[in-house]
Amino acid sequence: MTFSITRAGHIEFRVTDLERARAFYVDVLGFMETDRDDERLYLGGLEERERYGLVLRKAASPGVSHLAFRVSDPDDLNRLADLYQKHGCPIRWMPEGYEKGQGRALRAQDPNDLPVEFYHTVAPRERMLQRFDHYRGANVMRLDHFNCQVPQVQKAYDWFTQTLGFHCSELTVTDDAPPKLWAAWLHRKQNVHDIAVMNGLGPRLHHAGFWVSDQLSVLRACDVLAATGYADCIERGPGRHGLSNAFFVYLRDPDGNRIELYTNDYIIPDPDWEPIRWSMNDPRRATFWGHKPPSSWFDEAALVENIETGELLPVSPPPLKDRPDFVT
Amino acid sequence: MTFSITRAGHIEFRVTDLERARAFYVDVLGFMETDRDDERLYLGGLEERERYGLVLRKAASPGVSHLAFRVSDPDDLNRLADLYQKHGCPIRWMPEGYEKGQGRALRAQDPNDLPVEFYHTVAPRERMLQRFDHYRGANVMRLDHFNCQVPQVQKAYDWFTQTLGFHCSELTVTDDAPPKLWAAWLHRKQNVHDIAVMNGLGPRLHHAGFWVSDQLSVLRACDVLAATGYADCIERGPGRHGLSNAFFVYLRDPDGNRIELYTNDYIIPDPDWEPIRWSMNDPRRATFWGHKPPSSWFDEAALVENIETGELLPVSPPPLKDRPDFVT
Amino acid sequence: MTFSITRAGHIEFRVTDLERARAFYVDVLGFMETDRDDERLYLGGLEERERYGLVLRKAASPGVSHLAFRVSDPDDLNRLADLYQKHGCPIRWMPEGYEKGQGRALRAQDPNDLPVEFYHTVAPRERMLQRFDHYRGANVMRLDHFNCQVPQVQKAYDWFTQTLGFHCSELTVTDDAPPKLWAAWLHRKQNVHDIAVMNGLGPRLHHAGFWVSDQLSVLRACDVLAATGYADCIERGPGRHGLSNAFFVYLRDPDGNRIELYTNDYIIPDPDWEPIRWSMNDPRRATFWGHKPPSSWFDEAALVENIETGELLPVSPPPLKDRPDFVT
Amino acid sequence: MTFSITRAGHIEFRVTDLERARAFYVDVLGFMETDRDDERLYLGGLEERERYGLVLRKAASPGVSHLAFRVSDPDDLNRLADLYQKHGCPIRWMPEGYEKGQGRALRAQDPNDLPVEFYHTVAPRERMLQRFDHYRGANVMRLDHFNCQVPQVQKAYDWFTQTLGFHCSELTVTDDAPPKLWAAWLHRKQNVHDIAVMNGLGPRLHHAGFWVSDQLSVLRACDVLAATGYADCIERGPGRHGLSNAFFVYLRDPDGNRIELYTNDYIIPDPDWEPIRWSMNDPRRATFWGHKPPSSWFDEAALVENIETGELLPVSPPPLKDRPDFVT
Repeated sequence: MTFSITRAGHIEFRVTDLERARAFYVDVLGFMETDRDDERLYLGGLEERERYGLVLRKAASPGVSHLAFRVSDPDDLNRLADLYQKHGCPIRWMPEGYEKGQGRALRAQDPNDLPVEFYHTVAPRERMLQRFDHYRGANVMRLDHFNCQVPQVQKAYDWFTQTLGFHCSELTVTDDAPPKLWAAWLHRKQNVHDIAVMNGLGPRLHHAGFWVSDQLSVLRACDVLAATGYADCIERGPGRHGLSNAFFVYLRDPDGNRIELYTNDYIIPDPDWEPIRWSMNDPRRATFWGHKPPSSWFDEAALVENIETGELLPVSPPPLKDRPDFVT
Repeated sequence: MTFSITRAGHIEFRVTDLERARAFYVDVLGFMETDRDDERLYLGGLEERERYGLVLRKAASPGVSHLAFRVSDPDDLNRLADLYQKHGCPIRWMPEGYEKGQGRALRAQDPNDLPVEFYHTVAPRERMLQRFDHYRGANVMRLDHFNCQVPQVQKAYDWFTQTLGFHCSELTVTDDAPPKLWAAWLHRKQNVHDIAVMNGLGPRLHHAGFWVSDQLSVLRACDVLAATGYADCIERGPGRHGLSNAFFVYLRDPDGNRIELYTNDYIIPDPDWEPIRWSMNDPRRATFWGHKPPSSWFDEAALVENIETGELLPVSPPPLKDRPDFVT
Repeated sequence: MTFSITRAGHIEFRVTDLERARAFYVDVLGFMETDRDDERLYLGGLEERERYGLVLRKAASPGVSHLAFRVSDPDDLNRLADLYQKHGCPIRWMPEGYEKGQGRALRAQDPNDLPVEFYHTVAPRERMLQRFDHYRGANVMRLDHFNCQVPQVQKAYDWFTQTLGFHCSELTVTDDAPPKLWAAWLHRKQNVHDIAVMNGLGPRLHHAGFWVSDQLSVLRACDVLAATGYADCIERGPGRHGLSNAFFVYLRDPDGNRIELYTNDYIIPDPDWEPIRWSMNDPRRATFWGHKPPSSWFDEAALVENIETGELLPVSPPPLKDRPDFVT
Repeated sequence: MTFSITRAGHIEFRVTDLERARAFYVDVLGFMETDRDDERLYLGGLEERERYGLVLRKAASPGVSHLAFRVSDPDDLNRLADLYQKHGCPIRWMPEGYEKGQGRALRAQDPNDLPVEFYHTVAPRERMLQRFDHYRGANVMRLDHFNCQVPQVQKAYDWFTQTLGFHCSELTVTDDAPPKLWAAWLHRKQNVHDIAVMNGLGPRLHHAGFWVSDQLSVLRACDVLAATGYADCIERGPGRHGLSNAFFVYLRDPDGNRIELYTNDYIIPDPDWEPIRWSMNDPRRATFWGHKPPSSWFDEAALVENIETGELLPVSPPPLKDRPDFVT
């Protein structure tokens, strides 16, 4: 059984102060505010044709409500509901319009306890790709991917690849003999990932990655952040990843939710692509130039919601070491 | 019936002087020479994992031997052979190794008289994406697309979309009422095109498009060409296309074969993408900044081979006007 | 006698509609509006510490009021007044505050009939170089240079170099034997020019050049202009000059006044720099990549004011051919 | 008394293995080898018209032989010799040709014990600015500046500004009341510095700064270094300086000599420029984005030679704290 999952579609962050979050994402980084209601801000990138790729929801604490994937076949919503139920996973149907402009959507607490959503329809908006007069800040083009920490990374890998039909672009293994899977980059659209699963305390959302137009947009994001008093939000980078080859910077929003500005990976049009394999302790894997990630990058991540109660889920430690040797 | 065509794979240009062509493509533009024999040079980009994306073959006159597409399912070669034969198209089986490192391949003279090839296997080579010390000239990453002129563009559109399963990203129509299709950009991989079909004297190959890493690589290509005495090869651009949004320059190789250096279009992960429609005479369509294309861009293109005899095919004029109003 | 002229300081354009001009310069190109009164808008770049580099003045027709140079020694104003008077040139003293924030200034109709101004003091403003949140449009950093057409280019060259102490970075000569001077690039600050004098119908201001932060800012200016309906303002380029090596684009404002966005020339810290000499008909001189300038670039330029009456001066034809062979 | 010092001219590094140093500077970073003899390699940038900006000399240990400044008036060599002798500083005349292509030059051990050289003449070479086919690696354009650590920074500041006529662009002061000078950026050419003097263990050469063509060249240098096994050479950055606004990266050559790749500061054409003042502990001063410099950046620097004996000079500690609070 295959599903018509096309890509990471949107993510909903919990933020404790909507206006403070809006200042960060819209005024500084240049996300477009495309809709809002009392509880939520809907934000989009310049390349997206759907109404939003990032939702900010007012909540008592930071965290993540759900990670949404689009399906191109609307019948897949029912088929996915059956699948999750067959695997004993809680599901929840969100009525049309529950998220602005979105049709009926399926949420599930997946076997890794990640709160996922599947949808088919979102109202389109004016295409802004060639409205260059609206390019600002980081020139954010679109949501690119999710990165999740889970204690059982092999199980998560199997779920996404064997059951949901994701392909693996690159992976990281431990130095054990035989090596164990430590992290995997999995895609439906044709670049390095729609979702990565990393070994770690989880379930947690490590970060959401947003595509920016080019390397200079990453540098400019840092310049604008520093110019507006947000220098402390720059957690790691700018730099180049060995794994994925992307040029990146990691930011923490005012609530501590982490995003990545990401560009310049590569395309994978062939489904028989041979995954690229990295050793966990190869210093060029994380940052090709050799810079060590800060320990916060491993210690901190966003808790995720129980899809039924909205409460944040407890986390469990992983059996494998949760970080490489070259952390600062 | 659907086919597992994944992308434009390679193209073979006829050149009258292999060494002169090598100087242009390898020494100046930075293509990598990955193989050669007495008759052919095999060239590749930095991102490609297959041995080559461009083949230069010694011939008495310029032109194009064939346009190759990859299939991810090897059984599709036989199924495609049946399809072309059913439509009365000549086919020809190329034995393994006929092109260096390539498995058995199918050639066909398609219903538009275009010489196409389908293959499954090509020997891989060392991945150069992160060998930044090899980046030179235009930083050519990979073959991106073919652009063909045909007299019957609606027929070509139907063939590629309905029979072969290409999707349409953008299209151009005439000012007639009702409008007629004038050109279409068709893709299998998830960007704007693997092949475009334009109304015009044909069958001809208008150009092969190669992806470069960023906008500055297009500028640098012009700088390097001018520095080495090849300024006359710059035919049109640099500029931004309205259609596709790509940043581009068109070059003519020493034999007059045309290539495009192309970057910064956008991704189309959703198969239900609504094509973007342009009017043929919208001046921003061709060059978003309003620059008029030179008449040579419409007058001149490469003849294509008869797949059985290797002779260049005669061309027929199109029933529609072959260019917009804003040509110089 | 030497003078402490440090650089091109500002220019005043005549515009027929201040709001229309403001939309072009401020809203689209990203100049900062730093002051205004009923008659004038004062605009500045991101790097400038003085209040303005460009003044737009409401007038009945386009044109140029004056070209201003800064002197670092305030006593040079009187010495320059004496000089111009000695050469029979009309002068006029502008009282402090006549231009907003500027101290007493000297205007003169120079021996080439160009309306020049010299000033020492202009009120500073907040430094915006690191206010990256204010970077917009073309990222205009500062006024860089003036380019003037004069019928007697050798005379203008002698005046600026021998009398005023400008140095020559590059020059263009005719194909005559012996060659005649056709144009010269003259500087006080240490890059290619503060003023260029070109053979042509004059006195006219051909263009004012503004420095932008990098090559991509030139491309982005074109993108933003096209996105906002100003594509017709792009007259020539983007491209690279052979002479000066700068990356450039020429724009016409809504009144037809011409500006250049200019970046990436080189520094000349040594006063004994040997000027680089180009032949007028070397096609790489004007555009290194070989693109031909449009005839409008030679035909059209801004009339300049009589410093006493404010009327626009009549022009005279040059004795030398006014353009190279490779114009479109 | 003023001197016609125009700029930082060249620097001579001691290296223990000429071929190993050549691999780093020429093969990887793209410096051009313009001359060599048994003892020395002469390297140049793409914009320089003199034969070299960096000399590598075979020696038993790393370090710096001398920092050279150009004078545009040849008579200044004698006048400078008188000046240094009057101040009790050892001098040494280097005969024409001692450094390849260079005329007679003056060396002095200045009052800060720095080994400086003054020269007027160096043989020119072909201008490579428009030989874009030679751009490689970091696209190194030219030597930009020297940065020296001295125990008595106020004394060094006074010497360079009051005696030699350097201007101050920016400076750093301690948090004392009244504040004490901690570092100063001093220039003769019209950008931020030809020489900076920083409080610290000295006399030492902290680094030599080389101008690269743009921000992407800094990123590309890191990519190329990492691709060729030199990732460990990247000591600090890439990032943006608050002070100077430059985009930078610091590298250590295989001997530990430090260079900076530097671009995008600003011009200072006015001699009455008001220096920009920073507090030593402002975290945005060192890196505008807030990144902390590593302790090695403060601990390690190159010893300098006694101009008479060639022996490396002993160092003394500074009375002021040698680093800000925000070092890693």
